[in-house]
Amino acid sequence: MKVGIIGASGYTGAELIRGLSLYQEVEINQIVSRNFAGKKLKDVFPHLSDSRYQDLTFEEEADLDSSDFYFLALPHQPSVELVKLLHEKGKKVVDLSAAYRIKNPSAYPNYYGFEHKYLELLSESVYGLPEIFREEIGKASIVANPGCYPTATLLALFPAVKEGIIQSDSITVNALSGISGAGRGLKQHFHYPEAYGNAYPYNPIKHRHIPEMEDVINGISDKKLLIRFTPHIIPVSRGMISTVVFKTDMKKEQLEELYRLEYRYEPFIRILNNPPAIKDVVGSNYCDIYVDYDERTGDAVVISAIDNLGKGASLQALQNFNIMTGMLEDKYIKDISRVSILFP
Amino acid sequence: MKVGIIGASGYTGAELIRGLSLYQEVEINQIVSRNFAGKKLKDVFPHLSDSRYQDLTFEEEADLDSSDFYFLALPHQPSVELVKLLHEKGKKVVDLSAAYRIKNPSAYPNYYGFEHKYLELLSESVYGLPEIFREEIGKASIVANPGCYPTATLLALFPAVKEGIIQSDSITVNALSGISGAGRGLKQHFHYPEAYGNAYPYNPIKHRHIPEMEDVINGISDKKLLIRFTPHIIPVSRGMISTVVFKTDMKKEQLEELYRLEYRYEPFIRILNNPPAIKDVVGSNYCDIYVDYDERTGDAVVISAIDNLGKGASLQALQNFNIMTGMLEDKYIKDISRVSILFP
Amino acid sequence: MKVGIIGASGYTGAELIRGLSLYQEVEINQIVSRNFAGKKLKDVFPHLSDSRYQDLTFEEEADLDSSDFYFLALPHQPSVELVKLLHEKGKKVVDLSAAYRIKNPSAYPNYYGFEHKYLELLSESVYGLPEIFREEIGKASIVANPGCYPTATLLALFPAVKEGIIQSDSITVNALSGISGAGRGLKQHFHYPEAYGNAYPYNPIKHRHIPEMEDVINGISDKKLLIRFTPHIIPVSRGMISTVVFKTDMKKEQLEELYRLEYRYEPFIRILNNPPAIKDVVGSNYCDIYVDYDERTGDAVVISAIDNLGKGASLQALQNFNIMTGMLEDKYIKDISRVSILFP
Amino acid sequence: MKVGIIGASGYTGAELIRGLSLYQEVEINQIVSRNFAGKKLKDVFPHLSDSRYQDLTFEEEADLDSSDFYFLALPHQPSVELVKLLHEKGKKVVDLSAAYRIKNPSAYPNYYGFEHKYLELLSESVYGLPEIFREEIGKASIVANPGCYPTATLLALFPAVKEGIIQSDSITVNALSGISGAGRGLKQHFHYPEAYGNAYPYNPIKHRHIPEMEDVINGISDKKLLIRFTPHIIPVSRGMISTVVFKTDMKKEQLEELYRLEYRYEPFIRILNNPPAIKDVVGSNYCDIYVDYDERTGDAVVISAIDNLGKGASLQALQNFNIMTGMLEDKYIKDISRVSILFP
Repeated sequence: MKVGIIGASGYTGAELIRGLSLYQEVEINQIVSRNFAGKKLKDVFPHLSDSRYQDLTFEEEADLDSSDFYFLALPHQPSVELVKLLHEKGKKVVDLSAAYRIKNPSAYPNYYGFEHKYLELLSESVYGLPEIFREEIGKASIVANPGCYPTATLLALFPAVKEGIIQSDSITVNALSGISGAGRGLKQHFHYPEAYGNAYPYNPIKHRHIPEMEDVINGISDKKLLIRFTPHIIPVSRGMISTVVFKTDMKKEQLEELYRLEYRYEPFIRILNNPPAIKDVVGSNYCDIYVDYDERTGDAVVISAIDNLGKGASLQALQNFNIMTGMLEDKYIKDISRVSILFP
Repeated sequence: MKVGIIGASGYTGAELIRGLSLYQEVEINQIVSRNFAGKKLKDVFPHLSDSRYQDLTFEEEADLDSSDFYFLALPHQPSVELVKLLHEKGKKVVDLSAAYRIKNPSAYPNYYGFEHKYLELLSESVYGLPEIFREEIGKASIVANPGCYPTATLLALFPAVKEGIIQSDSITVNALSGISGAGRGLKQHFHYPEAYGNAYPYNPIKHRHIPEMEDVINGISDKKLLIRFTPHIIPVSRGMISTVVFKTDMKKEQLEELYRLEYRYEPFIRILNNPPAIKDVVGSNYCDIYVDYDERTGDAVVISAIDNLGKGASLQALQNFNIMTGMLEDKYIKDISRVSILFP
Repeated sequence: MKVGIIGASGYTGAELIRGLSLYQEVEINQIVSRNFAGKKLKDVFPHLSDSRYQDLTFEEEADLDSSDFYFLALPHQPSVELVKLLHEKGKKVVDLSAAYRIKNPSAYPNYYGFEHKYLELLSESVYGLPEIFREEIGKASIVANPGCYPTATLLALFPAVKEGIIQSDSITVNALSGISGAGRGLKQHFHYPEAYGNAYPYNPIKHRHIPEMEDVINGISDKKLLIRFTPHIIPVSRGMISTVVFKTDMKKEQLEELYRLEYRYEPFIRILNNPPAIKDVVGSNYCDIYVDYDERTGDAVVISAIDNLGKGASLQALQNFNIMTGMLEDKYIKDISRVSILFP
Repeated sequence: MKVGIIGASGYTGAELIRGLSLYQEVEINQIVSRNFAGKKLKDVFPHLSDSRYQDLTFEEEADLDSSDFYFLALPHQPSVELVKLLHEKGKKVVDLSAAYRIKNPSAYPNYYGFEHKYLELLSESVYGLPEIFREEIGKASIVANPGCYPTATLLALFPAVKEGIIQSDSITVNALSGISGAGRGLKQHFHYPEAYGNAYPYNPIKHRHIPEMEDVINGISDKKLLIRFTPHIIPVSRGMISTVVFKTDMKKEQLEELYRLEYRYEPFIRILNNPPAIKDVVGSNYCDIYVDYDERTGDAVVISAIDNLGKGASLQALQNFNIMTGMLEDKYIKDISRVSILFP
């Protein structure tokens, strides 16, 4: 199968190439990047200089016909259009932007600053979180790959939302993200000497991932639930922690049982006996989850850890690819997850 | 004035010496450390090798008579005894351990694993957070210097608790701490290759700082308030963020006004227009605070940043020292705070 | 084939397990560690908690009979004895300590503080640097896996030494190492807050790796060559740079040609057009090399980069294993090297 | 005295303001920055938001009349002109660029890509390394503040060059630098996720600091000496190590004696008994030096550590300012050096 990666010179693009280079069924036949057009893969990403795609050259423009399957790792607005064009040509697409993630179209002007014109396509696209929407992903031609914060947070919330055990109206979510989550674009506060030894919260009231998270949980929950969300930047390259707190009557043992049961067949979810650490998931598609209960305050405390570029982006995109193309869901991704983890 | 530092070879001890080396009114006449007894300051802490105390030698045992004022930077249980002995000798003490921080004695067996025998002394000691207990500190002979998490969290909560605007029964607190907060003792998970690039929550249900925080706020609040507290380790040396969420009716402008008013004369509190960053407080005694309001969920979001070894430990201890000895409260500490900040 | 790993709870042990978990021909049938005896792999190394060996339990004592092949990741002196015992039982061994690396026995008392008693075995063992001793490794039953500094430095020197182009008597080597190179044992200066943001040279005159390097180059060179070696610690977890300077008449183009020719069939050596960076080799078995010439001073400048735990230890040990057991030399290791690299 | 800082929004500018804020004799009356014109100091540098200059506003254009003394922290070519204009107005200047550092004008086209038009001024300016040129600095009106690599390297070489004990024609210098040494301008390879965990050499043959170093040592040495220089980037914000190797007959004790004698009255040089570490000099104006001798190869090994923004830039600029204005040379700078050091 011929696969095209459009927006291939960012971090998620590089991770897609790293992963797909193991796929014997796949040939990446185009990598597209305006910024690096004309350059070879190995010159832009020296760590991939022994990849089978090392001599592939970045193209200026995408060819929408020559590939069978497309990964889009572009800004939101260009993706809106490109997904539509690819869809009209009958191509399957995993879109890593937010362009088709949210069913409620009013979120786009409110949180992203543009009107979404293709409402039909928006309702046809499937949110690419396999642990919740596996079946729909299998039939979809447009999969909107989730954001990193929503992936970590929704996996920490899903069993509780599905079971209807959340008693508060709002859920307090605090999350930590490595800086690669902000992408490869240069910014003063991510210049190494300024980010070094620093940590801080940002967008504490109105982060773009809020409507994405609420859209999914309110599609499942009978009761309307709000997300109170504070993201923090921490000075690591990769990795994400989401700490979720909500009122419930269910105690620790029952909660843990609920989560273990819900996720018992999931290849990439590990329920731990101790709080998770990002070091144990970096480079992988794992989501590690820990469940606890505060008897004093009556709160469940659920903590999840992912690699924002792995389960939070590119490896989850491959998981969706595997499902959409009828492959074994964990093929290659399991091996990558096992050996790409750096210890220490 | 002669000052003794008992437990002088840890991080808080080193910071006390750094700060006190500017004090012209003070002579440090003893530094005590079992582990480094017989060694010179400059050999244990090369960064202090041009200090006026560079040739001072660590003593094995404390001399409880020869100093006028004592700083104790010891484990909790030895401090219980030593504070008592010093008190009997009429010495003034700032104790950096938790030995005399909590008025409610049942917290000690529950959270610290020992019975506190000196209840009278416990009730006589003053909690060393000047922004709340300045007057009492001025008259005290035993000041229990606050923990780092409580300092950051209580300063983020105090105006709201005092004003009685918190409508929820519990307050959700998420905090991030640099690793120096865990002290200088060696542990596998703080071995550099293992801590590098890692971050994780720990003790998510029953951290020792909970009773310390609840003790203070419930001494002020008419309504009983519980702290729901999740601390996280992040891979920096110094610095702490506390993100506090509670239900209230007061909107952003009123909240900010409340905080600005309460802290308007405080020399070490800065109310910011943007979320604070640890980089801006490292090395200093500042506590930077940001106040916001989530209209959707009805939550106040207050975020504070301190240096866990500065305002969270040793520089706050010097602030208490200044108050207890009748000096200008910000003398020397202001200069240290201004120039010790490393940029970038 | 049954494989035993003795000393399996350190960093090199963990990396051996990570790598071997891909090997379909291999069953790890024992992992031995005094410190962690009785614990399961997944509890000691959570990042391996989805490994096929996740439930393997660390043994207190090694069983010298039950495995066909042994990896030893122990201190030097225990290895001296254990290699002998295994050899007597006819087992093949890759020893990751220095116990059998140096042919000249006087190096042991001088640099390691003990007399080596088994001179015959010392002369029989083969130095496990495949790019130089591939043929001997193929026939060996004891392979002494090289140190990390010697691996990086010797690969930067080998073509020049072999060709006899070095005109100075001494070669100036400056090297940088990540902290995992010092192992997993706790030390004050590797406690995170103390190592963070720090860098320094150490052992600038008499580092243990000097005789190991000189032993190899003087086995090849007609002329006696001395290594002037300054190692530096830098605050990363993994990765190593060796910068080698020597007088020669050969100019840049010729030098580069010499290196490209010598290494043209090597699966794990990449000659680059720009100075190498540790980020591009971390997690892999690659050695990236750059060659330049200073016309003003008449010096060749050769720079190599490896992962100290990869090509500098465990993945090189697997490369030796592949050669010793008749497998394709790069089997599995190539895939690991390609996908284990984290970007960014 | 009124002081102007032109180019005040970079790292060296911020450090100048941090230091000068202690000076009671000084009023900074202008801070100039095209990029941040119109913004207040505290908004650009929040860590300085309690400085006495917090409300000073960055100007678009420099006023060459209103200050008595000027610090220039600009790119090289604008400095060439601006120094001339200020000189014509009779102003004293410390220029932190390379515009007036090198006496040999041919270095400018060769290494900096422009012809230097003001040869007279070039010969009149004084190289601002007080340990070598203190007397000239005291009389100068234009002081060219040294580069960071030259400061560290020349202080490691000066006693040996002055004494004439270097027997080789070339001196091998390997240096490590924190990333702030490259300034505040954004570059892809200094984007946090890419610099994190990375280290690499760069410009291994023709770095701009070579002519600056050779210019100084060949002004002192009878014998022409060449610098063989390899700089490396390491992933810290601040700090620099220079490791210098040269042939000599002088053994360790004599060498150390030579260095101690030469620097015995220097307020900012500390000769250590162990190799220096950057952690001990960060934030300060210290240069820590260690001297050793390799009996096997006949090489002296001298290692120095500085803060590239401290002794390597802004604090050294203040040291020059103190000398040029007749103040005590170490006034304020000593206090800053003592308390700005962060431990750990």
